[in-house]
Amino acid sequence: MIRAAAGRLAGKARRTPLLRSPFLDAIAGRPVLVKPECLQHTGSFKFRGAWSAISALCDPCENGAHPTGVIAYSSGNHAQGVALAAREHALAAVIVMPSDAPRLKIENTRALGAEVVLYDRGGEDRDALGAQLARERGLVLIKPFDNPQVIAGQGTVGLEIAAQAADEGISAAHVLVPCGGGGLSSGIALALAAEAPAMQVHPVEPAGFDDVVRSQLSGRRETNPASTGSICDAVITPRAGALTWPIIAQLCAPGLVVSDDDALRAMAQGFARLKIVAEPGGAIALAAALFQARALPGDAPLIAVVSGGNVDAAMFATALTRFGDFA
Amino acid sequence: MIRAAAGRLAGKARRTPLLRSPFLDAIAGRPVLVKPECLQHTGSFKFRGAWSAISALCDPCENGAHPTGVIAYSSGNHAQGVALAAREHALAAVIVMPSDAPRLKIENTRALGAEVVLYDRGGEDRDALGAQLARERGLVLIKPFDNPQVIAGQGTVGLEIAAQAADEGISAAHVLVPCGGGGLSSGIALALAAEAPAMQVHPVEPAGFDDVVRSQLSGRRETNPASTGSICDAVITPRAGALTWPIIAQLCAPGLVVSDDDALRAMAQGFARLKIVAEPGGAIALAAALFQARALPGDAPLIAVVSGGNVDAAMFATALTRFGDFA
Repeated sequence: MIRAAAGRLAGKARRTPLLRSPFLDAIAGRPVLVKPECLQHTGSFKFRGAWSAISALCDPCENGAHPTGVIAYSSGNHAQGVALAAREHALAAVIVMPSDAPRLKIENTRALGAEVVLYDRGGEDRDALGAQLARERGLVLIKPFDNPQVIAGQGTVGLEIAAQAADEGISAAHVLVPCGGGGLSSGIALALAAEAPAMQVHPVEPAGFDDVVRSQLSGRRETNPASTGSICDAVITPRAGALTWPIIAQLCAPGLVVSDDDALRAMAQGFARLKIVAEPGGAIALAAALFQARALPGDAPLIAVVSGGNVDAAMFATALTRFGDFA
Repeated sequence: MIRAAAGRLAGKARRTPLLRSPFLDAIAGRPVLVKPECLQHTGSFKFRGAWSAISALCDPCENGAHPTGVIAYSSGNHAQGVALAAREHALAAVIVMPSDAPRLKIENTRALGAEVVLYDRGGEDRDALGAQLARERGLVLIKPFDNPQVIAGQGTVGLEIAAQAADEGISAAHVLVPCGGGGLSSGIALALAAEAPAMQVHPVEPAGFDDVVRSQLSGRRETNPASTGSICDAVITPRAGALTWPIIAQLCAPGLVVSDDDALRAMAQGFARLKIVAEPGGAIALAAALFQARALPGDAPLIAVVSGGNVDAAMFATALTRFGDFA
């Protein structure tokens, strides 16, 4: 499924490069390679999964089974990925967002052609509202991670890592992946199990939202006690998915946990050494590579996925002000 | 020479992608494609010219004519490009810098393995000092732009633009290039004259340092009245080169001039829409594409080179604070 998704994504998703800097190697004490999915369309890897799922929906379109449109719940990166992928398939996209979502995210999603339906987080039932809209208008729900075609789309990051690392003579590595619902971690783990079995995938979570690390220890799917309280909003979910967790449990190496300050430090390093813009949640795997390299056995290179760059100017300026002065 | 340089750079310089965003297209009113050389090794296109020149020096190395090392005058991007390219050729690099250069640039250049020799801008003669060092140690001077192999190396950006634009079905375009000494503009113009003759190259300069625009009008190589007074330090030179100017005069379309504020605005757009870090001088061609598109005849796509991203955190935070709030 991942290889089929890669075929549908060819020429549509961007094949992001694999970046490195001698300055980052020096911090980690070994080679650090960075897969900057912040450079992906809509600023995050989510475009891959959205394209994969929507293009798969449309596979039977030629037989006349063309859906009317798609619907998604998201105030963040999944919303923009679905909006753009739907527009490029000439499908309507309805994105259900809380009415208190940042105005910029609402406007960006609208600017990508989606209809944004706002709901009151306090009084309205999002799922009921979405189900009603889907029924009335014949829309197909695109879940953010618990959808096989979404996982397959995110897995194309893993196919590219395997090929690009091989070009640099690297077959064994620790691959560090920001992990919220687990779509990216599980997709990459599946791809690398087939294409680069000497690579180990480590999910990386923000402090306080380490459900996957705790799940790896307990052997069952754990839940986070809180739903807010981290700057890493892109990777805050109640728990891993019903589909993604068994894949992570079977294929992933131990996860790592990163503090908010280390996420900001990694953003500043990405700025200074790679010239990329990472959002806090997108920077946690780079943070783990730079600041927790000693926790990773051996001396194999580290490959860190920077999963997104949709951060507002004030937060990025904070990272630079606090951690951007290397002189 | 450009094609030969491309052969020597293959697998050494990064083939930067061609990025785009529907939000930038909307500002310009037509497609805007961005070649982000800030993602190049050492954070600017200068690595290409440095690699090209140093690898050409080393071509006869196998015959025993290995040079001892190289020397360059620079406090900026050329210094880092030469330092890294020399180190990867196992050559010594001496970089002559003013003693009041920013400490971070001195440290970064040293960290890339170069020996930094400081001189007193007020009392010492830089050229005499450099000539003495070169003579005593058998070093070869690598000029920042008036060197045919450096121009050939920068021209590889043009080869990539031609190929990558063709992949997107684009053969005619306005190609906007930040211009200081003219190495990048002349190299790209030469490459595109051969590979994509329907593309027009426009040098872009910062306000107050528009010697090339004035030279295009007068027909002779003009000089800038000042040597400081712009935030666009990467593209501030007294005048275009003796080698680069005739190429620009013959091959380039009219130049454009960009204000410091528009450079900062373009940095904020690059941050928000492409997730890249541009320095002020590196952002001026993107600024011209976004804010002066109406000055460019027809409706052909615009291709803007972002030439570098070596900007300190305080300056970048200024761009975000002043122009980064799109909500």
